[in-house]
Amino acid sequence: MAANYTPKYFNITFPQEHVAHVEINRPNQLNAFFEAMWIELGHLFNQLSTDPAVRSIIISGAGEKAFTAGLDVKAASQGLLASDSKTTDPARKAVHLRREIGGFQDCITAIEKCEKPVVVAMHGFSLGLAIDLSSAADVRYCAKDTRFAVKEVDIGLAADVGTLSRLPKIVGNFGWVKDVALTARLFGAEEALRVGFVSRVFETKEEAVKGALELATLMASKSPIAVQGTKELLNWSRDHTVQDGLRYTTIWNSAALQTSDVQSALLSGIQKRKPTFEKL
Amino acid sequence: MAANYTPKYFNITFPQEHVAHVEINRPNQLNAFFEAMWIELGHLFNQLSTDPAVRSIIISGAGEKAFTAGLDVKAASQGLLASDSKTTDPARKAVHLRREIGGFQDCITAIEKCEKPVVVAMHGFSLGLAIDLSSAADVRYCAKDTRFAVKEVDIGLAADVGTLSRLPKIVGNFGWVKDVALTARLFGAEEALRVGFVSRVFETKEEAVKGALELATLMASKSPIAVQGTKELLNWSRDHTVQDGLRYTTIWNSAALQTSDVQSALLSGIQKRKPTFEKL
Amino acid sequence: MAANYTPKYFNITFPQEHVAHVEINRPNQLNAFFEAMWIELGHLFNQLSTDPAVRSIIISGAGEKAFTAGLDVKAASQGLLASDSKTTDPARKAVHLRREIGGFQDCITAIEKCEKPVVVAMHGFSLGLAIDLSSAADVRYCAKDTRFAVKEVDIGLAADVGTLSRLPKIVGNFGWVKDVALTARLFGAEEALRVGFVSRVFETKEEAVKGALELATLMASKSPIAVQGTKELLNWSRDHTVQDGLRYTTIWNSAALQTSDVQSALLSGIQKRKPTFEKL
Amino acid sequence: MAANYTPKYFNITFPQEHVAHVEINRPNQLNAFFEAMWIELGHLFNQLSTDPAVRSIIISGAGEKAFTAGLDVKAASQGLLASDSKTTDPARKAVHLRREIGGFQDCITAIEKCEKPVVVAMHGFSLGLAIDLSSAADVRYCAKDTRFAVKEVDIGLAADVGTLSRLPKIVGNFGWVKDVALTARLFGAEEALRVGFVSRVFETKEEAVKGALELATLMASKSPIAVQGTKELLNWSRDHTVQDGLRYTTIWNSAALQTSDVQSALLSGIQKRKPTFEKL
Amino acid sequence: MAANYTPKYFNITFPQEHVAHVEINRPNQLNAFFEAMWIELGHLFNQLSTDPAVRSIIISGAGEKAFTAGLDVKAASQGLLASDSKTTDPARKAVHLRREIGGFQDCITAIEKCEKPVVVAMHGFSLGLAIDLSSAADVRYCAKDTRFAVKEVDIGLAADVGTLSRLPKIVGNFGWVKDVALTARLFGAEEALRVGFVSRVFETKEEAVKGALELATLMASKSPIAVQGTKELLNWSRDHTVQDGLRYTTIWNSAALQTSDVQSALLSGIQKRKPTFEKL
Amino acid sequence: MAANYTPKYFNITFPQEHVAHVEINRPNQLNAFFEAMWIELGHLFNQLSTDPAVRSIIISGAGEKAFTAGLDVKAASQGLLASDSKTTDPARKAVHLRREIGGFQDCITAIEKCEKPVVVAMHGFSLGLAIDLSSAADVRYCAKDTRFAVKEVDIGLAADVGTLSRLPKIVGNFGWVKDVALTARLFGAEEALRVGFVSRVFETKEEAVKGALELATLMASKSPIAVQGTKELLNWSRDHTVQDGLRYTTIWNSAALQTSDVQSALLSGIQKRKPTFEKL
Repeated sequence: MAANYTPKYFNITFPQEHVAHVEINRPNQLNAFFEAMWIELGHLFNQLSTDPAVRSIIISGAGEKAFTAGLDVKAASQGLLASDSKTTDPARKAVHLRREIGGFQDCITAIEKCEKPVVVAMHGFSLGLAIDLSSAADVRYCAKDTRFAVKEVDIGLAADVGTLSRLPKIVGNFGWVKDVALTARLFGAEEALRVGFVSRVFETKEEAVKGALELATLMASKSPIAVQGTKELLNWSRDHTVQDGLRYTTIWNSAALQTSDVQSALLSGIQKRKPTFEKL
Repeated sequence: MAANYTPKYFNITFPQEHVAHVEINRPNQLNAFFEAMWIELGHLFNQLSTDPAVRSIIISGAGEKAFTAGLDVKAASQGLLASDSKTTDPARKAVHLRREIGGFQDCITAIEKCEKPVVVAMHGFSLGLAIDLSSAADVRYCAKDTRFAVKEVDIGLAADVGTLSRLPKIVGNFGWVKDVALTARLFGAEEALRVGFVSRVFETKEEAVKGALELATLMASKSPIAVQGTKELLNWSRDHTVQDGLRYTTIWNSAALQTSDVQSALLSGIQKRKPTFEKL
Repeated sequence: MAANYTPKYFNITFPQEHVAHVEINRPNQLNAFFEAMWIELGHLFNQLSTDPAVRSIIISGAGEKAFTAGLDVKAASQGLLASDSKTTDPARKAVHLRREIGGFQDCITAIEKCEKPVVVAMHGFSLGLAIDLSSAADVRYCAKDTRFAVKEVDIGLAADVGTLSRLPKIVGNFGWVKDVALTARLFGAEEALRVGFVSRVFETKEEAVKGALELATLMASKSPIAVQGTKELLNWSRDHTVQDGLRYTTIWNSAALQTSDVQSALLSGIQKRKPTFEKL
Repeated sequence: MAANYTPKYFNITFPQEHVAHVEINRPNQLNAFFEAMWIELGHLFNQLSTDPAVRSIIISGAGEKAFTAGLDVKAASQGLLASDSKTTDPARKAVHLRREIGGFQDCITAIEKCEKPVVVAMHGFSLGLAIDLSSAADVRYCAKDTRFAVKEVDIGLAADVGTLSRLPKIVGNFGWVKDVALTARLFGAEEALRVGFVSRVFETKEEAVKGALELATLMASKSPIAVQGTKELLNWSRDHTVQDGLRYTTIWNSAALQTSDVQSALLSGIQKRKPTFEKL
Repeated sequence: MAANYTPKYFNITFPQEHVAHVEINRPNQLNAFFEAMWIELGHLFNQLSTDPAVRSIIISGAGEKAFTAGLDVKAASQGLLASDSKTTDPARKAVHLRREIGGFQDCITAIEKCEKPVVVAMHGFSLGLAIDLSSAADVRYCAKDTRFAVKEVDIGLAADVGTLSRLPKIVGNFGWVKDVALTARLFGAEEALRVGFVSRVFETKEEAVKGALELATLMASKSPIAVQGTKELLNWSRDHTVQDGLRYTTIWNSAALQTSDVQSALLSGIQKRKPTFEKL
Repeated sequence: MAANYTPKYFNITFPQEHVAHVEINRPNQLNAFFEAMWIELGHLFNQLSTDPAVRSIIISGAGEKAFTAGLDVKAASQGLLASDSKTTDPARKAVHLRREIGGFQDCITAIEKCEKPVVVAMHGFSLGLAIDLSSAADVRYCAKDTRFAVKEVDIGLAADVGTLSRLPKIVGNFGWVKDVALTARLFGAEEALRVGFVSRVFETKEEAVKGALELATLMASKSPIAVQGTKELLNWSRDHTVQDGLRYTTIWNSAALQTSDVQSALLSGIQKRKPTFEKL
């Protein structure tokens, strides 16, 4: 199966049945991202989304120092943040920027749109894009050495690939979101845990990855119809009224409840054995 | 007054002036729900909603073992989860499922639509439907022995009578919601308190019910115009922009502020005595 | 600069470069608000919003006893809560109430619409309107002696100048919001911190104000393009879907990213010195 | 089948296979509505909605003079519009009015929520409630003698059971809607046709009813899975963004496309014969 | 009464009881607008909105040649469209432009927010801002010589004070809106009538103004509670789902139905005489 | 330039400066679509969207008989509408259908998302997908021989690639939309013109294409900043409240108004010559 995936800037392995492990692999530059990387990331999650062999995914960063230090600022100053040499017209520059930002956002949103649950294990520097990227995932774990920051205001800009749109809906503490986003200050693992940005803190990076893998393995052991429906319905409900959430759930489950997974799961429950589910 | 209520699967009592106590009463089956029960529950809350003698409501479960173990899976496999014998056409099955799920949702939503505040006191097993039901209430208390789970993925389905639509708007920790909903794992009273799913944890079931009753009694002692308006405006605001919330509040209060309760409340405040309010 | 501001019910000072300090100044009446005060407050924040010399703002209350005890109930019973002597027609009274409530809301909303971040430092009695007002700000700090209450139901009405619309989107604990709003009970600094209503608790009022000033000073030291964009994008995202948030961010940043602040910030980062930004 | 329906204020017949005809039957009072009538109407359409023998419905009014003259004002002045004798408190009156208006709206909305298409054939006086009621249906036909009016402002109130919410989404001429709703002026069949409120005008009431029946019969001859899905998807799309409409359509059709009706319809098309579809 | 109004760029008269006539008064420049004019227009409609002597309003343009030729382009090139001399930073220019456009929009939106119905009578050149302005009104009439254009693309910009947001919701012909907005082509009275942009076409300007006055007089003769409620409920419904429209209507009418206007209107109907209503 | 485009199922030419002509090219099968065609269509419009040489686009169909007869039903019965051989589980089939429908929708939505205006010229059979496709465009023209139908219910399904979501927002006659969508009946050019589905009817296909080309040429002669902004702002406004539309417009124009196109356009206006605009 792994043969189908040949990313250049990420390692991809399959440590457990139905579980993929995506590792950001540019450790010498603190896993900082440049354009080719986020495009590849988008492609990768689009592919994982419909791969029948995959039921859950974890993301981590290679090397000891950083999950990712965020945007590779040097590359960006020659790209996204460069003055647009094609034109001096601010309106035309704006058009080019809109296309670039929109394309960048789509790559990160691929994690949220991925039909399977995604668990992120962070460590070390987890700055800027680290927050955007992990906010698009479902569950966040980290090592106790993790140093987070919504770093963008420090380089003169408002974060624009997801943090400002998703973070207020992930942690229920709007004052804290304002605090960290308006100051770009560092915060640690304990603070991230307290406000609910991460769900668990581990002693080391290795343990965080192991913990994420265990969680992903547990999710992968359940009915994929049930798990993937649950991810979708939670994301939909986040953005709609309770009534629209209930109605969409009804329509969704009018097909999903016809699955044989229900019988498999019920039977396995009675027989106290691990169910198996048809591939999806 | 109690004469008007003759539920079959619930006990209803009036332990304090203006306070109703609804008890799920199927303790031998861990208060598990089958269709006739949720239909009765819906009717009961529709009736309580406009009963002038009632200003707040508490819900608890009979017996020592469970608030409710959720759906009666055995009954459901012959009902909601049964293969639809009337047709083999998946689209027609979907129509029947839509109607059944929609009807079921309406019964649970009756708690949310009930004009009076509803406080739930949980204990023991509080699985699946327990989360859907209590998420439709206003405040949740529990005993320290409570064992919660968003259990649905374990029977092959995505929760569809409210948990996935309401839980993300009740607790401000989307990662935790994803975690418990995608794994179906058990969680205890302390965890529920920490993430804000319950507001208080008590030593025993009896104390939890007593605590809920005290809270409900306090709410029932306030102006019913003010209290019922507050419940409605908070629920509306949850589902709308701040601006739409403010506007709706303006329209609502343009009638509500004309109440004599304001004078009664102000006067009682000055005279340091308990106000009484015209029935509603 | 201060010459332009001559409020009657507030003190305004500029304790740090680019930082304004607004102090509610009616300490003899526990800083309770009457109509002329909230109108002045609205004007003040509209003016601060576009003042190029101001990049962040703190609000506190004069005197030792209260940030504000809320609405001056005595004044209100002759104004907003007075029976409307112009007419006995409930529909016409409703029209007058709509206009008054709407006008009142606009004054408080001026804090939210103010383009610069606003940090509130509370102490002592912080009742009713204190919650409405501080909920419209970005970050809330308090002294440990602060006594909060969503006091409105105690005077027979549902809070209508912002608390019920904003509080559920500030703290991610809807059960707690229901609890305090439906009972009007007092809660203290520690509880406010635990649920995320305030971000930090200080030993004394003076320290809280000092803390707020430090935070505001830090925000004022960053690129105003980045900071003001971040405030706006977070507030927009709170009220829209993630997708609408991302799109709005794209459009916003298509102009904002053309700022020279990005180069200034990047260069200062490399040169390890404090950047300066053109006034805005 | 007709045996199941025993309405008191309506006639119900089944003039064609799968087509029900509901006739408002109070011709001596110009088919004016009082409370028991709209409650019965609501029940009737809820029942028709899930009756497998029914695939489309027409509504008309008995007698020569009126489809319906609207609210029976005399009955209403003792009911909905009566001064509320139970209380003098405007806020409590408002609660009672809210419940009554809400209940009334639900009865009319039952036509919109009915899963099958509803065609209305109007004639003669079609005032006030006639507009509310027919706006909740799918297609409107009328005789050339029809006299329409959004009559409510003439009795001192804003229309509140659907006209003001639905009419602007039915006819794409907001100025015309404002004109007729703000003046209560009469308008005739030709004007109704020109602005798109009705789809066809017939010489006589009998022809209008016949035309409606032919349209309903045509709709009833198509796949009920396709027809009922189309009604629902159009109503959903009216109230949502194009993107939410597309997504909801995807989820809906993921079950609906599995129907054997597709094969039946395709085969009938090839064989040039009338398809038959399993009952729904 | 007229004494209270002293506009500089508009004439204001009261040709009928409860009816105000606002005339754009810069005929020598084809009634073209510059900044001071739209600010005055906003103030004027805010004042009219709560003037108890006014129940409906008409707007027309002085002189024979134009209702308004739109933006005074010469003035604009030194103002709104001038290059911003205060800064060369495109992001800072964007901030200034945002404030200016937003302020301009608020002035036009004052017509829509005005609680009383507004009828516009157009003639001659009615370009650019003429469309923005009249789209914010309730009903549009015109003389047959009127020449309309959504003129903005011809001066290199997308219309930004209302046309693009309101026109698609006024006329139900999105292709036509795209056509005229993307080409800036002229269109005449007959075309405007056909697509529903205007409701009636008159031979001359004088007749158009007379027709508008008759319509406004009719509206002013009805219960102001009913009329103003109807305007508000239609505008709210345009922007919300049918369900949110129905709910808002319920809340609104729970106060409005308590008016004595209902009894006055009913009684007048029975007695066949013109009702009078308490001032509002 | 044409060298960059090598579509297989479409012809692409550039009949005027800045204008592209896309012709559906499968005349022997009435231009019926199969999967490879809509995928290519999506790619084509994504490419045109950012091609600086293109400022407007027209679409027509090759051959005399049809713009397009819609879905190639034969191909579809082996593809989208085929029973899913990979699984018998209805829930898994639903997942596969969701992915296929979603992918199909994206291809059609590419026309709407294309930054440049798109004009469609239809003739002959214009069934099913013809309506979906043309509804995603900006302006629709047709020859008088055109035969339209929302054909989907005739093959047992609800239209799912755009018609049901877009048509109610294009034509302001919801009853007509219901009529044609629930009956699948044919309608002609005159009816399409009357309800506003098409903007103009021509004698022949050739004239329709010529008319479309003239319109597109006119649009291409205007400032591309203004034209593309206008398309985007109209589409955004269709799906949002007026207030959100106004706000988005403000943000958009805060960059767009900085264009030198404004000066070019103003100057050309004064000098009575055709402006030229920098490429975009």
